[in-house]
Amino acid sequence: MVPSATETCQIQAMNERSQWVLNAPEPPTLWHELVRLLRKSILPDPTNPPSKLVLSFVKGMFPILHWPQSYKAMKFKKDLMADLTLASLCIPQSIGYATLAKLDPQYGLYTSLVPPVIYTVMGTSREIAIGPVAVVSLLLSSMAQKLEDLASDPIAYRKLVLTITFFAGLFQATFGLLRMGFLVDFLSDGAVVGFMGGAAIVIGLQQLKELLGITYFSNKMDVVSVMKATCRSLQHPWNPHNFMIGCSFLSFILIARYLGKRNKKLFWVAAIAPLISVILSTLIVFLMRADKHGAKIVKHIQGGLNPSSLHQLNFSTPYLGEVAKIGVIVAIVSLTEAIAVGRSFANLRGYHLNGNKEMFALGFMNIVGSFTSCYVATGSFSRTAVNFTAGCETAMSNIVMAMTVLLSLELLTRLLYYTPTAILASIILSALPGLINVNEAYKIWKADKLDFLACIGAFIGVMFASVEIGLLVAVAVSFAKVLLISIQPGIETLGRLPGTDIFWDVNQYPMALKTPGVLIIRLKSGLLCYANANFIGERIMKLVTEGDDEDNKRTTYLVLDMSSLMNIDTSGIASLEELQQNLAAKGIELAIASPRWQVIHNLRLTNFVGQLGGKVFVSVAEAMEACLGAQMAATSP
Amino acid sequence: MVPSATETCQIQAMNERSQWVLNAPEPPTLWHELVRLLRKSILPDPTNPPSKLVLSFVKGMFPILHWPQSYKAMKFKKDLMADLTLASLCIPQSIGYATLAKLDPQYGLYTSLVPPVIYTVMGTSREIAIGPVAVVSLLLSSMAQKLEDLASDPIAYRKLVLTITFFAGLFQATFGLLRMGFLVDFLSDGAVVGFMGGAAIVIGLQQLKELLGITYFSNKMDVVSVMKATCRSLQHPWNPHNFMIGCSFLSFILIARYLGKRNKKLFWVAAIAPLISVILSTLIVFLMRADKHGAKIVKHIQGGLNPSSLHQLNFSTPYLGEVAKIGVIVAIVSLTEAIAVGRSFANLRGYHLNGNKEMFALGFMNIVGSFTSCYVATGSFSRTAVNFTAGCETAMSNIVMAMTVLLSLELLTRLLYYTPTAILASIILSALPGLINVNEAYKIWKADKLDFLACIGAFIGVMFASVEIGLLVAVAVSFAKVLLISIQPGIETLGRLPGTDIFWDVNQYPMALKTPGVLIIRLKSGLLCYANANFIGERIMKLVTEGDDEDNKRTTYLVLDMSSLMNIDTSGIASLEELQQNLAAKGIELAIASPRWQVIHNLRLTNFVGQLGGKVFVSVAEAMEACLGAQMAATSP
Repeated sequence: MVPSATETCQIQAMNERSQWVLNAPEPPTLWHELVRLLRKSILPDPTNPPSKLVLSFVKGMFPILHWPQSYKAMKFKKDLMADLTLASLCIPQSIGYATLAKLDPQYGLYTSLVPPVIYTVMGTSREIAIGPVAVVSLLLSSMAQKLEDLASDPIAYRKLVLTITFFAGLFQATFGLLRMGFLVDFLSDGAVVGFMGGAAIVIGLQQLKELLGITYFSNKMDVVSVMKATCRSLQHPWNPHNFMIGCSFLSFILIARYLGKRNKKLFWVAAIAPLISVILSTLIVFLMRADKHGAKIVKHIQGGLNPSSLHQLNFSTPYLGEVAKIGVIVAIVSLTEAIAVGRSFANLRGYHLNGNKEMFALGFMNIVGSFTSCYVATGSFSRTAVNFTAGCETAMSNIVMAMTVLLSLELLTRLLYYTPTAILASIILSALPGLINVNEAYKIWKADKLDFLACIGAFIGVMFASVEIGLLVAVAVSFAKVLLISIQPGIETLGRLPGTDIFWDVNQYPMALKTPGVLIIRLKSGLLCYANANFIGERIMKLVTEGDDEDNKRTTYLVLDMSSLMNIDTSGIASLEELQQNLAAKGIELAIASPRWQVIHNLRLTNFVGQLGGKVFVSVAEAMEACLGAQMAATSP
Repeated sequence: MVPSATETCQIQAMNERSQWVLNAPEPPTLWHELVRLLRKSILPDPTNPPSKLVLSFVKGMFPILHWPQSYKAMKFKKDLMADLTLASLCIPQSIGYATLAKLDPQYGLYTSLVPPVIYTVMGTSREIAIGPVAVVSLLLSSMAQKLEDLASDPIAYRKLVLTITFFAGLFQATFGLLRMGFLVDFLSDGAVVGFMGGAAIVIGLQQLKELLGITYFSNKMDVVSVMKATCRSLQHPWNPHNFMIGCSFLSFILIARYLGKRNKKLFWVAAIAPLISVILSTLIVFLMRADKHGAKIVKHIQGGLNPSSLHQLNFSTPYLGEVAKIGVIVAIVSLTEAIAVGRSFANLRGYHLNGNKEMFALGFMNIVGSFTSCYVATGSFSRTAVNFTAGCETAMSNIVMAMTVLLSLELLTRLLYYTPTAILASIILSALPGLINVNEAYKIWKADKLDFLACIGAFIGVMFASVEIGLLVAVAVSFAKVLLISIQPGIETLGRLPGTDIFWDVNQYPMALKTPGVLIIRLKSGLLCYANANFIGERIMKLVTEGDDEDNKRTTYLVLDMSSLMNIDTSGIASLEELQQNLAAKGIELAIASPRWQVIHNLRLTNFVGQLGGKVFVSVAEAMEACLGAQMAATSP
């Protein structure tokens, strides 16, 4: 059969296009791309003049400099109102979380004073409420206690916590400067939900100590140890005063919360309930002298502003490496919480949060905090929600809140002498349900079983092993999932969608038509590498062998659609060579369609293209045309 | 403008195809696929009748049962010749490697007796020479010495090594039964090359002890410790006899090797050189009574066949977990070496190696080995190469070799009394250059910088830290590379290839044409997930903003080609939603082209398709047609 003029023309055009594939310019290597990406994200845009650059850098570092143009008296009034609500929640929570971190109560107040002010000057989120949070306090105390025994040397323990705070801040600021915002993305949704839920339960169980007035308690934090310690204590006589005070005020706070949720206008009832509880319970204890009858009280809280703690930072410990490691973990967990909180509220208001600037701001704030007797501060979910509902407009509310904390540090600490510790436990307990997000967990279960596995793994790890193991499980499962999907040795058979030149998975489109004698296979993995190349080669050969039995026409061509393949390594090319030989032994010709830049480059380098006899095409359709043309030429005389 | 009849028809067909995308059947979840894959690979094919199944299972387990049909006298003669060469290399190497594993010399011979016989019955490789190898011996002694001090209790140390051998065999057999052949694929080429090279240097440095006749030597294996110990020893008077014997015979062996390489027919000179060295040096020492002048000799080697060691396996140690861990590491390293060796020679002969069967055979062989005083055996690269060059036809050569070892155990051990230990060191040293593969490392450097990083990491890790850390580095870098490529937040701009409906990367095909006003973006990652979703979203928005300045026509459409996206998680969908809102705020419409099965399923589940207003198309070309159609409709009255 002599081809007509138009056919010849078509064939020529097709050959030319095959040449396009083969003569593509050299692609940038992964190495170069990484370097370029790093340079682009770290160095500033070089087109701006230097003077403007400095100004924009400074303005970028301190978003507060943008405010004078837009900040109005009206906004301030709104912020003030939001703040007073916020402060009434913040003061009791700060004291409670300080006890969770095994520090004296005033350290919680210190942490609600300096960091919020610094964040206001540098941060980009408008709603976030900065201060101590439950999960970070727990993480800190659980890890620091392994290095320094709290009971034997509380001063060394405090020094350790401050040093960890310094390191955490340093790492956060460094992540921000190096634009490593993606680090906080490395905990998947499922992992965060599971971790928070597990931590909430562990924190809740820790509160049993105060709520039951138990003196001897387990130092370990997992569920089994705590339950054992509690059971052991209950066999001894225990004091019901603490329990009664704690439970009655816990009910009060929860009812107030419920009211606030039912009626959005009453949100302030929920917000000030903790402060009211503190005042009422203090009064009750004071008037009834319940402390004489066994009710535990806070006792002395050091008044006055944050003292300097520069001399308390201890860089000459033998386990400085351990301290830095804890610093990294605390840094990442608190960043994850802060940015998750910030992002969700920024989305509600419809503006975008700059992850890198946030990280730098939070880091700088914690470094300064470590110089002024603060422990690790971050964005609190419960307080941010109150702040948002109260209608704050700018991060200014953080400053007003800090002022209130300042006033109470100066004036009110003496009034807190008779505050029962059980009330702090009930305030912490009342904040926990917000951390256990069953709905989200159910959503994750519906959407992605493997993500749910990360969630459950983190949850169980935190509850039954330790906070760090829970985190580790979460990160490992998240990564394992990514790896599994990336290198799954999957292949799919393609068919032509009727009426088009599109070839797609026949399982996805049942109407797709297979061409007899030609097998079109697409790889499901983005990478043909040492980890999956052999497996994929074997699966393709199996499919070819099975395909022979299925339809009567013998397979003579195999088109390999490489469109989804991002990269191929030496093992991958070796397995392709093996595949080509195995196919040739069965009399099947191999053609390659739509290779990407890096892939065709590697195939050309190793001369696999030469082995194929140049059967490389821009698309599956062109490969099919070439195959069928060759088949027709072979069958016709 | 009223569309013509054919145009209406086309539009209808396109809409119908969009419906195909949206109404695809539900895809199998990753979970189901994993279960199916596991079931398929573990359970046998159910279509065969049970009787046939048992027979094929037994035949599968013992490939030797296939031989009677094909094994001929001619083959046996060839095997016999190959064997005698092999045995002359095997006996001195076995004794040397036993000293490397810090065991008595006869244990090396034991390990060259039982495992090869069992492998012959069960294995599928024809050329592989089974026995003790240098790297595994080193790994074993370096890890076992941490648990049990050799100097204080050599019997406990031997028991430990045998128990590790049992565990290694158990794990190998289990991997084989569960068809986890892919496990050995998890060390990338680069990692293996680097690890082997580093191990060779560490082994070489260990030989300095024997070569210099140093009595007190470092127990640590890293380069720094060994060099320090050597320098310290050299300050004391040292005996030159050992050094002279060792060096002169090392030169002899290396020259013989060189001759063998130059002239392929003289390969047997290289192979028997070690045995000749042993005989000559033993004679020299015996005749000159050099042992009286400070030359160290092997002394007593226990004669007789392998004694049973069943009672020596010790499962009641307090560190059984540690023992099992070492077992896993040794199992994987020795499998990697055996299968790499087996595969490369199988490729040369043009047959295929069944990884799972190999694993089971090697595992079973090591389990039996641990009952009969053998330590971990695997395929040796140097001996396999000799075996191949000598022209062996079947694994029968292993049996003949074992017989020779048996004879020498029965008859020759007494003759080895005066063999200088320096000669064993020089035999080990002479085998090392084969492990340092500079050419391959250079190839890897040319092909893939990140794989080279794994190579260098493993090399440095083994040399300067420890064998395990080297392995860990290699595995970690290999995985990090896969992760990096899988989740790299890359995007590429597509353009139409002239004369076709194909849209492809404009960097790869510089002739591709962009359509003004429409931006077509393809994701480079196979996964849009928590780890890269935010980053990709930001990059797309940046590209859109920059695109506005570039050409005068404002972008009104953005087509997202999802063809390479294998999966998308909740974070990915959230970032798509954010992207869509950001684009809408700029007056840009988002369309999605060629989503895969799992992706469109997830998008449909979360109703993102509804948000898009159904702008989902089977291909970029169709999406473009729809966009341009809408544009024309908008501009015409």
